Amino acid sequence: MVSFESDYNNGAHPSVLKHLVETNDEQSSSYGSDRFSENARRLIREATQCPDADIFFLVGGTQTNSTVISALLRPYEGVISVPSGHIAVHEAGAIEITGHKVLEIPGRKGKIVPKNLEAEILKMEQDPNACHMVIPGMVYITFPTEYGTLYTAKELEAIYSICREHNLLLYIDGARLGYGLSAAVNDVSLPFLASHCDCFYIGGTKVGALCGEAVVFPRGNAPEHFFTMTKQRGALLAKSRLVGAQFEALFTDNLYFEISKHAIAMATTMKGIFIKAGIQLWNDSPTNQIFVVLDRQMIERLKSRGILFEIWEPVDDTHKLCRFVTSWATRFEDIFLLEKGLV
Amino acid sequence: MVSFESDYNNGAHPSVLKHLVETNDEQSSSYGSDRFSENARRLIREATQCPDADIFFLVGGTQTNSTVISALLRPYEGVISVPSGHIAVHEAGAIEITGHKVLEIPGRKGKIVPKNLEAEILKMEQDPNACHMVIPGMVYITFPTEYGTLYTAKELEAIYSICREHNLLLYIDGARLGYGLSAAVNDVSLPFLASHCDCFYIGGTKVGALCGEAVVFPRGNAPEHFFTMTKQRGALLAKSRLVGAQFEALFTDNLYFEISKHAIAMATTMKGIFIKAGIQLWNDSPTNQIFVVLDRQMIERLKSRGILFEIWEPVDDTHKLCRFVTSWATRFEDIFLLEKGLV
Amino acid sequence: MVSFESDYNNGAHPSVLKHLVETNDEQSSSYGSDRFSENARRLIREATQCPDADIFFLVGGTQTNSTVISALLRPYEGVISVPSGHIAVHEAGAIEITGHKVLEIPGRKGKIVPKNLEAEILKMEQDPNACHMVIPGMVYITFPTEYGTLYTAKELEAIYSICREHNLLLYIDGARLGYGLSAAVNDVSLPFLASHCDCFYIGGTKVGALCGEAVVFPRGNAPEHFFTMTKQRGALLAKSRLVGAQFEALFTDNLYFEISKHAIAMATTMKGIFIKAGIQLWNDSPTNQIFVVLDRQMIERLKSRGILFEIWEPVDDTHKLCRFVTSWATRFEDIFLLEKGLV
Amino acid sequence: MVSFESDYNNGAHPSVLKHLVETNDEQSSSYGSDRFSENARRLIREATQCPDADIFFLVGGTQTNSTVISALLRPYEGVISVPSGHIAVHEAGAIEITGHKVLEIPGRKGKIVPKNLEAEILKMEQDPNACHMVIPGMVYITFPTEYGTLYTAKELEAIYSICREHNLLLYIDGARLGYGLSAAVNDVSLPFLASHCDCFYIGGTKVGALCGEAVVFPRGNAPEHFFTMTKQRGALLAKSRLVGAQFEALFTDNLYFEISKHAIAMATTMKGIFIKAGIQLWNDSPTNQIFVVLDRQMIERLKSRGILFEIWEPVDDTHKLCRFVTSWATRFEDIFLLEKGLV
Repeated sequence: MVSFESDYNNGAHPSVLKHLVETNDEQSSSYGSDRFSENARRLIREATQCPDADIFFLVGGTQTNSTVISALLRPYEGVISVPSGHIAVHEAGAIEITGHKVLEIPGRKGKIVPKNLEAEILKMEQDPNACHMVIPGMVYITFPTEYGTLYTAKELEAIYSICREHNLLLYIDGARLGYGLSAAVNDVSLPFLASHCDCFYIGGTKVGALCGEAVVFPRGNAPEHFFTMTKQRGALLAKSRLVGAQFEALFTDNLYFEISKHAIAMATTMKGIFIKAGIQLWNDSPTNQIFVVLDRQMIERLKSRGILFEIWEPVDDTHKLCRFVTSWATRFEDIFLLEKGLV
Repeated sequence: MVSFESDYNNGAHPSVLKHLVETNDEQSSSYGSDRFSENARRLIREATQCPDADIFFLVGGTQTNSTVISALLRPYEGVISVPSGHIAVHEAGAIEITGHKVLEIPGRKGKIVPKNLEAEILKMEQDPNACHMVIPGMVYITFPTEYGTLYTAKELEAIYSICREHNLLLYIDGARLGYGLSAAVNDVSLPFLASHCDCFYIGGTKVGALCGEAVVFPRGNAPEHFFTMTKQRGALLAKSRLVGAQFEALFTDNLYFEISKHAIAMATTMKGIFIKAGIQLWNDSPTNQIFVVLDRQMIERLKSRGILFEIWEPVDDTHKLCRFVTSWATRFEDIFLLEKGLV
Repeated sequence: MVSFESDYNNGAHPSVLKHLVETNDEQSSSYGSDRFSENARRLIREATQCPDADIFFLVGGTQTNSTVISALLRPYEGVISVPSGHIAVHEAGAIEITGHKVLEIPGRKGKIVPKNLEAEILKMEQDPNACHMVIPGMVYITFPTEYGTLYTAKELEAIYSICREHNLLLYIDGARLGYGLSAAVNDVSLPFLASHCDCFYIGGTKVGALCGEAVVFPRGNAPEHFFTMTKQRGALLAKSRLVGAQFEALFTDNLYFEISKHAIAMATTMKGIFIKAGIQLWNDSPTNQIFVVLDRQMIERLKSRGILFEIWEPVDDTHKLCRFVTSWATRFEDIFLLEKGLV
Repeated sequence: MVSFESDYNNGAHPSVLKHLVETNDEQSSSYGSDRFSENARRLIREATQCPDADIFFLVGGTQTNSTVISALLRPYEGVISVPSGHIAVHEAGAIEITGHKVLEIPGRKGKIVPKNLEAEILKMEQDPNACHMVIPGMVYITFPTEYGTLYTAKELEAIYSICREHNLLLYIDGARLGYGLSAAVNDVSLPFLASHCDCFYIGGTKVGALCGEAVVFPRGNAPEHFFTMTKQRGALLAKSRLVGAQFEALFTDNLYFEISKHAIAMATTMKGIFIKAGIQLWNDSPTNQIFVVLDRQMIERLKSRGILFEIWEPVDDTHKLCRFVTSWATRFEDIFLLEKGLV
């Protein structure tokens, strides 16, 4: 049996685990002021080329999104997202529970299209009933998106420029940031991304950690008392070293990117195998998530052979969009099992 | 100058005002236990043929929607609405601020289509990620809709049947209920409506009152402590007699329906005038809101002649969907001013 | 039968009602932009000597408190109040439902004591765990208080000075403002009050209106999009003329203060009657609420004679603190009925 | 240098860490359905003698409290706590942000006194304004309390009996549960505790884990869709194995209680040392938190010698209440360092 269901089906990358073990006996302070977190912050400031960045370590993605978004918005504001954005669909209403509306605008394969964004913002601003409506306060994008697609540097620049022009914050959900930054076709560097948004997070859980996400306010622009807001939202660990030390490991010796590259290499191999087997790739995802359209028989066959993956959504009566994900733990042997299963 | 902008541009219907004046000097208790409210409840129980109904008088529409919806939903639940539903677009996020998502499903001219509803609910229920998503707990419809359209008795029956089958509550926003019930084509009676939903409100503000909406739980099915929840949401008047006495007047001598019929008669006259002038009716609204598509010149001409109305939304570069509304106060003279303005 | 239960047991003062009737047929715009509201704003700006004041008309007191407080606080902030403050005890959690804690500090007969306030703020600020605690963002006081007591100008000055020093907003709940300003012992003028806080409201409901409270941001310091936040909280009337016209009447020919003075005169007469009857005044309230301690027999006797009043709280096993309230509608005859009832 | 600041200043207990390492390479499912969590649930069901218990693994204490409390309360309900209760003071308003008031009642050294509880509940229920007030829906206690004190079985029984009589839920915060259950004077067993409340949690973070709390609904009485509510509140880990595996270790070979006993033994030794040094114990805490009153000089002296501890609250101008905490990691050598520091 092998699972391609997600990149969170294994434990930690061995180097991350090793660092947790090696530092376990050291006494440290807590609630984010431990020396591991401090050092991880230093490493991330270097990697992002943001010497003044405010950095906070939270535990998981949904929590990070709701904490950041509710901290940055005023009560009358909503956050713009495409319908497939994680906050819009798969976080069980974690944004709404903080009192804010997710303002959906049409997207393309998980991405916001800059000129659509501008048109939609203008429509909201110019609506004669605008003051009776939720006022947009932020744009939310994911990098890579839920469909494994990426924004180009030019697109990111355009989106951020529109945001600034219309006085909206740009927040980037980087749950799988490493896989985006490490993709062959990607032209967005970590410092470029950091300088083209108001806040983003570096996902740990899905890139080799046991848990943990690093929230970055690139220009020291964290809202006042953000620390207290993480506490209030239940996002502050007493043993903050748990996330601090993991990010220390991830940002030492380029590990975060090595993990990402490995997973992409495995995904690329997988793409070849699907193509060879005549399976239709739904899109040419350059990251660690591969989307293919499978018919009912194929789905059954793979399942019966112990190949696990996610049914993403129905395409038609007999076909479904399916997601296969790789991670630090995926081996060639796993891919070969899939290859055998396909025929 | 004459305004067709809304049905809330005038004061109260004279009979409503007269009743307020006549009862003003009488001392009464407060917070809903006054004898005017008690009597109004009795009249509404008769009119709805719901002898066991729980009835609460709130002040305005948005407040009523957010109070009712937040009182009936559990934290993980959302409310289904079409995108043009008042709660989805023109209440400034009043539902989200109570922690609940508005789950938008496609509609047709303001209405939910029963078979679409069923398909969308099934999709939500069967989504493999359903437990990571907002769970539908209620269906919200407006009668008449924001576009002046009406559900037939058969459609209402179908929707309520779907709701019960899927364990969803049905809540009907009756901000303009009278205009719907009194429309010539309407086949839904007030008792029928009351027996085909879990909660609805009888709009007062837009049907001749100065303020006030009557929330009806038809089978005595108000949630426990609903009174306290109206207080908590700022929807409880100290001088509850203000709304109680108005509803007493509205439900005496059929006034609520007389007001509605008058406004519809004026709207019907207006429709004829638009048709005569060659103006395209956007839909054949049977109620007191008339939607027409006007070009820029016509919009300017009417404005310059002191004819006020609402620009609803753009149709194309040179045309806009415009809304003209009648009320108890609209007179033939007003309509004739419009007629003159059009040519 | 006569009721001293509250100052909201009657309808509107005749002059207020007359103005509603006289203006009823005039067509007006809505949602606060009607000419009645505009004029009322002008009159209030004059009365408060705040030419730049932002003024909004809301419907009721609890609604006003929760709308203002949630609009002014950041998510991590709470509001300081004495335990008897209306928001702390009798608004059913209307502040908490917006996400904010009421931080209770000890008071004296309904009032905050300036030096206590300073000590409590210092304690909060200097607590070693301050960043794990709700951060004070506002001080809430009532004028007059729930026990009918008043702040002197000197006390108000001291409190506002402490607030500014500690970067806290001062918000004054003026549900019964008129009765405070018109009290014989009072040395706080309306302009003085307006210049010694960040926001306050002028209560209408309890001072002769049918409903309505005027929120004043004295130096044009309303938070951005406050209008939209009133909509979102269900506090915006479509027929805003209802409150606008009433405040027009209240601030014409000094009516607001005439009403208040009448009620105080009646309350003063009542005090004399209690003293004559040997009933203990709980405090020497200078406003329209009289608190006396009655034993069980007296309570029963008054009830049996149709004298209605509120049981406020138990004092001991056989005595209760009782509240008697006067209003514009209280007549000498009513007081004499009480006098007869007492013996 | 040695820190007695808290029981979360070290990493995981070696056996917990070992289990994480040994299971790291095994692929598992996620979001709580992994086999480690399943097995941990089985072990906890055994330890609590609750074969039907619903068990959920959350990440931290504040998060657990706000998730559980908001899931169990209706919008109009509040939760009763003593002022020193964690939710009332040190969680930054995490309960209020979910819309609920913490109803404070006086306590004694961190504990609710049963007969006080009953009196306070009766006062709330019988208040003539009860329907304008927050309605109590739950009682919150901590075991052990924030002052290290414990409820006896008899007290717990009395409190739960009062709760059931008044239709209130009882929720026990067991952040340091092990230290309470393992205390020498304790007469409450884990099964007894489980059968005398509606929900409780077994704290992991402060008892040897890196993070993680096990929420137990002892009689399968979790509210519907509690899983989705944990997601919505950001309390659901993708790699749920992280907490599942840790609780597997903690509930294998009695580890949870061995850790607790060790910390208590260290604390007992520490108590002797304080007594020998003539330091006043603030209370005779039977658990792993020792509270002593130190004067300014002693505080400075200990600090200068690298002995870290928490200043809890001021006692008078020259004395402070200080907290010393032990954990699995505390060694005799650490205690001896303290002993040397004291003289």
